[in-house]
Formats: sequence, structure tokens, C-alpha cells
Amino acid sequence: MKNYKMIIQYDGTRYSGWQAQKDTPDTIEGKIENVLTHLFEEPITITGSGRTDAGVHALGQVANFHALDMPCDTIHDYLNAHLPKDIAVCSVEEVPERFHSRLSAIGKTYLYRIHTSPVSDVFARKFYYDYQTPLDIARMRKAASYLIGTHDFKSFCANKRMKKSTVRRIDDIVITPSDSELVIAYTGNGFLMNMVRILTGTLIEVGDGRRDPDSIPDILAALDREAAGYTAPPQGLYLKEVYYD
Amino acid sequence: MKNYKMIIQYDGTRYSGWQAQKDTPDTIEGKIENVLTHLFEEPITITGSGRTDAGVHALGQVANFHALDMPCDTIHDYLNAHLPKDIAVCSVEEVPERFHSRLSAIGKTYLYRIHTSPVSDVFARKFYYDYQTPLDIARMRKAASYLIGTHDFKSFCANKRMKKSTVRRIDDIVITPSDSELVIAYTGNGFLMNMVRILTGTLIEVGDGRRDPDSIPDILAALDREAAGYTAPPQGLYLKEVYYD
Repeated sequence: MKNYKMIIQYDGTRYSGWQAQKDTPDTIEGKIENVLTHLFEEPITITGSGRTDAGVHALGQVANFHALDMPCDTIHDYLNAHLPKDIAVCSVEEVPERFHSRLSAIGKTYLYRIHTSPVSDVFARKFYYDYQTPLDIARMRKAASYLIGTHDFKSFCANKRMKKSTVRRIDDIVITPSDSELVIAYTGNGFLMNMVRILTGTLIEVGDGRRDPDSIPDILAALDREAAGYTAPPQGLYLKEVYYD
Repeated sequence: MKNYKMIIQYDGTRYSGWQAQKDTPDTIEGKIENVLTHLFEEPITITGSGRTDAGVHALGQVANFHALDMPCDTIHDYLNAHLPKDIAVCSVEEVPERFHSRLSAIGKTYLYRIHTSPVSDVFARKFYYDYQTPLDIARMRKAASYLIGTHDFKSFCANKRMKKSTVRRIDDIVITPSDSELVIAYTGNGFLMNMVRILTGTLIEVGDGRRDPDSIPDILAALDREAAGYTAPPQGLYLKEVYYD
């Protein structure tokens, strides 16, 4: 048996998310497992670096699986020839037996795209949050600065019954504006359920004046989902990269 | 009355082309005329620089119309607020009375995108021709060199009963490869029905070895549509820019 690592891109629009679930055939994980099961002629289970929600995209999701010896190029070509066109495998490589896409990950970067112009980008319109209103970047950067570091992000977690630790470390939040949009890149050691979308909704509320940049420490201290902003919609969110040692 | 010039982008996927036709409500021209007719409260007819076929996109289509005095910003904002998200108006400006989008045009650039990699670009997959096979760029450039200049392009015209002149001037054909695709930019003083798509189909046949680069002069001389290559599909074609004095 060998351990194979894949880097995967997908347009998440029509999927109910990454994770294969009973009675939910349209998951990205499920589509890939089906193709691999046909190729290897035995049931293959893949492990992703983490779930992405329904409608969320990926530029560099990572997944691994154990299977019999086969050239990586053969697996790579077969996957791209048989997967739907909204899922693409960028690479397949053999990795050490102990490699685990989720447990070995030491960090991740997510991007969130907010379209701030009233003029539609006709070719990308399904791949951003259509906000159509300018945002004050200076206010958003001030607010973001309070989020950097190790904090209990319970206020930014959609799972109110989360029993495990909600402490995470955010290394960087980079906000890059262009003429028509604003991209926020979040890098950290791990993210809670909906955390990037709630962080984004909160930063948007700061950027349009509804919320004070200096309110962030109080939101963190509240340890209460109700204290933070709204959950930005999934279509603007991309899992960009997963980091390993 | 004033004369207004618009620059327009659209994703042509779901439209039956630019031109408004009876019993064909889904044309780009028709959508824009409807919005302008509501705004000005009288029937507005717009004139495009030329028709684009069903499924063809635009990065810089130009159209003009005559209507009562109104601030250009008001027209611009109203259009983008009321048009579907796959049509965007980039600018609205007042132009001299004599300006005519089609008759005043002195040249155009079209782009054609060919995806040559077997790995799908999941976010752009509806906006290129999915050819999935590498093409020999040197052969294509050799063939393209024969097309530059003023020629009778009857062999590259889909309208076999064309009664007007089929002589056109091509100023430039630039072929730009990247890892996963190849973009061909055609600039000339005018293009016949399906001409860019037939030129592209012919260059593809040269690039994959089916046709000799040196066969182009014979194709031109034949003055017969049957002599040229196939018509490349519409989803890879973009009207990029229209030039005026």
C-alpha cells in the first residue's frame, strides 16, 4: 500500500460541500472517491485537510488516500479525465506512510473576495460576494490587527455546542483592494466552523461603518457568537493553501 | 437629443447573440434596450459595433443610442442596477452626433482562448474552448503569417451567399501560450461572419498536425469555405476592443 497526496481545485457552487454524507451524492469528496474506486477497483476513502461548506471553493485543497502501487501520472490523468469539469486535480504525489492531510497540517490560508463595485465582473460573478458598496480599508485593517495572534475565537464559531478548544492562532490578515474588489487573506493554524465567514462579516460591518474597529477586543472577550458580525456568504470563500512541515 | 456611447462586457453563454430578433427575447441588445426604454420612458434603439454570435463573449463591445439629455452617470448607474449580472456597462459618455458604433469603427480586436491542458480551470471552464491537447505554436505562427495583410477571405466566411466584398485587412495575429492555454488575438479592419472562428479552427488543424502551415495561401486562393478548417466553438471567442479615430 502507498500513500498518495493530491492538491485539488474546485468550483464549489453546485456542491453541498467537501464531505461525503449519506443521501448527499454531490460532495467533492464523494466525486473523487467514486473515480478512485473505479480506477483501483476497490473502495477508496480519501482524507481531506478539512471540510469546506456548501458553495465554498478551493484553489489548493489537500487530500490523501492509501491504495495499491500505481504510477502517480496514471492516477492524475485518470482523475482529470473522469472528474466533472468543476473539480481539477493539480498534482498527485507519493508521500510517507505517516502523512495525514488533516492531522499533519500546520496551517492554512483562506481568501475571501468581496466585490465592492456596482459594475458586475461578468466572468467572475459567481465567484465573489456581490457587496456593491465601497468599504473603508483603513478601518478594516485596524479591526483586523486585533485579531492577529492566539485568541479564543468562540465568538467567531458557528458551532455553539463546540466541546473542543476554540483557541486558534491567526498569523496574518492581509486586505488587498483593487478597483472593483477587495480580497482578504487569512492565514492561521486552524479555523473553526464558519470562522472565516464570520470574521469577514464582522470586518465588513467595520468597513461600512456599522461597527467600531476598536470593538473587536470586546467581541473576542464575549465568547459569544451573538457578539460578532454576520456570516458572509460562501461564494466569496476559497481554501487557498494548506501548509505542512 | 444627444448621442451616447457605451462600452459593454458580457458573458454570452446564455444569450442567442447580440442582435435583437423577433421571438428571441434573450439577446444582449434586447436586454439593454429594455432597460434604456424604461429609463427614458420612450422606445430606445441601440446600435452595436457589430453582431456577436450566440455564446460569444465581449470585453469591450461598443454601442451608441440617441436620447434626451440625461447625465451619463445616471444612465450608467441605472443600467448596471437593472441589467442581469452577465451584462455590465463599463462606461457611458456623450459623443458627437455623427458617431456611429458600426460605421465609425476603423478596426477590432478579437481574442480566442483555447485550453490545451487536460486539467480543467474550474473557475474559467465556461469561458474557453476545452481542447485538452497541446498545439505546436511555431507551426501556427507560420500559418498565421500568411493571413496578415489585405486578402479576400471568402474561404473563411460562413455566409456562402455573401454579396458584398469579402476583402478584409488583418493587421496582426498574436499567439500567446501559457501553461494551460493559448490565446490568439486577431486585429483587423473588419471580420466576416464566423471568420475568427474559422481562422481559429484552421490554425488548430495546423497546430495539431492535420494541416500544413504552407497550405494557407492555397486556402485563401480557393475562395471556397470548404477549403478552410472547421468553425471553432463560440465559448472561446471574445470581442476585445473596437477602435475609432
